[in-house]
Amino acid sequence: MAPVMTINEIESLLGEVFPQVSRDFKVLTLDDMAVTVRLNVNDTHLRPGGTVSGPSMFGLADVSVYIAVMAMVGPEALAVTTNASIDFMRKPAAGVNLIAECRLLKLGKVLAVGDVLMYSEGDPKPVARASMTYSIPPKRQA
Amino acid sequence: MAPVMTINEIESLLGEVFPQVSRDFKVLTLDDMAVTVRLNVNDTHLRPGGTVSGPSMFGLADVSVYIAVMAMVGPEALAVTTNASIDFMRKPAAGVNLIAECRLLKLGKVLAVGDVLMYSEGDPKPVARASMTYSIPPKRQA
Amino acid sequence: MAPVMTINEIESLLGEVFPQVSRDFKVLTLDDMAVTVRLNVNDTHLRPGGTVSGPSMFGLADVSVYIAVMAMVGPEALAVTTNASIDFMRKPAAGVNLIAECRLLKLGKVLAVGDVLMYSEGDPKPVARASMTYSIPPKRQA
Amino acid sequence: MAPVMTINEIESLLGEVFPQVSRDFKVLTLDDMAVTVRLNVNDTHLRPGGTVSGPSMFGLADVSVYIAVMAMVGPEALAVTTNASIDFMRKPAAGVNLIAECRLLKLGKVLAVGDVLMYSEGDPKPVARASMTYSIPPKRQA
Repeated sequence: MAPVMTINEIESLLGEVFPQVSRDFKVLTLDDMAVTVRLNVNDTHLRPGGTVSGPSMFGLADVSVYIAVMAMVGPEALAVTTNASIDFMRKPAAGVNLIAECRLLKLGKVLAVGDVLMYSEGDPKPVARASMTYSIPPKRQA
Repeated sequence: MAPVMTINEIESLLGEVFPQVSRDFKVLTLDDMAVTVRLNVNDTHLRPGGTVSGPSMFGLADVSVYIAVMAMVGPEALAVTTNASIDFMRKPAAGVNLIAECRLLKLGKVLAVGDVLMYSEGDPKPVARASMTYSIPPKRQA
Repeated sequence: MAPVMTINEIESLLGEVFPQVSRDFKVLTLDDMAVTVRLNVNDTHLRPGGTVSGPSMFGLADVSVYIAVMAMVGPEALAVTTNASIDFMRKPAAGVNLIAECRLLKLGKVLAVGDVLMYSEGDPKPVARASMTYSIPPKRQA
Repeated sequence: MAPVMTINEIESLLGEVFPQVSRDFKVLTLDDMAVTVRLNVNDTHLRPGGTVSGPSMFGLADVSVYIAVMAMVGPEALAVTTNASIDFMRKPAAGVNLIAECRLLKLGKVLAVGDVLMYSEGDPKPVARASMTYSIPPKRQA
């Protein structure tokens, strides 16, 4: 199954839905049930010491699964996060962008489940792992 | 067991450790293995529609457990989040502060586990539930 | 809101739905959005050393939330576990029954979220904490 | 890094540590930070309808991560599960063995994190996803 949206369409949608933060994210690849997203790290994402904060990693995982769902289902759909579990495994490298590799493991009529590994750009060891469940309410009427 | 830090001491510590965000949080109560923390909601915490964003709720839960651990163990300790699981259950009320009620369920030598219920101020139904595990490395040497 | 089923009705339902294991569980209390359930520990629940196994604790948490949902919604409903997160915090006492205190934090039309603390009978420190999400499909037609 | 134990050594260790259930599991492959384990499904693992029960899937995920840790660290080590999160995504096929594909994402001095996808044998869509954290206490003295 191919995505029903292009990277450009996804980025327009993000700009509309999350105007405050959409510039922080760059969709790198978009495939069947999978996306790669970069967090362009700036000062607002950092903790003292220069590493990326927990809420910023949460946000990256959440946006990545949202993008993967929208890409497969289309922009008319609604989707809200109902559950997240995250393992923080290593300290991200200071001042380095984060890359999220996200797969959708399930895309049902009412629930979608995505799996995310996050890396400091250029380092093969994951800094965090997340899984998120999205609830997909019935499509909005035109 | 009583906390070894006062609310004032906790707020000074937060200002030191998280200077960017410490003003967003207000410690309301501090008890044995329990704290209540308010997120003073401002524009940076909101999603379109005016409700508090997922990353902001994650941050509130994370800070609450951090405060509870520090209050019991003292400011010399280090503590890093290793795991978080969150259930998002209801949409927070638009533009309303969030209250986190946090209990420590375990405070061991190397791991602490906290449990958090979050509410829109004035509404008895929880908007989210979180549990966080902190790893507590050995104390820093003076 | 009062439960729509009695303890006897719940135990009959369990015997029907989970005939292999229903005798392992005893419903102690049934209230609005809350139940207490005892796992009558026997050899099949134990690990070497005599403590209750992880799968047995998972099963107790799962059954407790299932009972809480059925008690509020009625026996015609279906409900399947979609997500579980568990923190194992202390070793259960050897050969002692486990008590699960379960609250429903959310009972929506399609999702229910329950929260469970598990104790070795007679010990006030929780051995484990769990949260479970159940998906509630539309009611079966008569 | 290569495993320090062979499949035969792992299976002997399981027989010693989990005598009641070790025959239910078969280690299929053992690699650097990765294992594949089969649950030989029998009546004790089933729910009415013939599908594998939640506690059985929990047990398979838990054993798989335990095996992966032991294979890398050696049999003298202790390891206890401290956290588990599971997404149940599809109903397992009735009466079919389950296959767990497990990777260790982190193997630190005190914490290990493993990631597991579970499949009904022969079906490429995962029935469940789990992540487990193990705490690794200091090695036992000889």
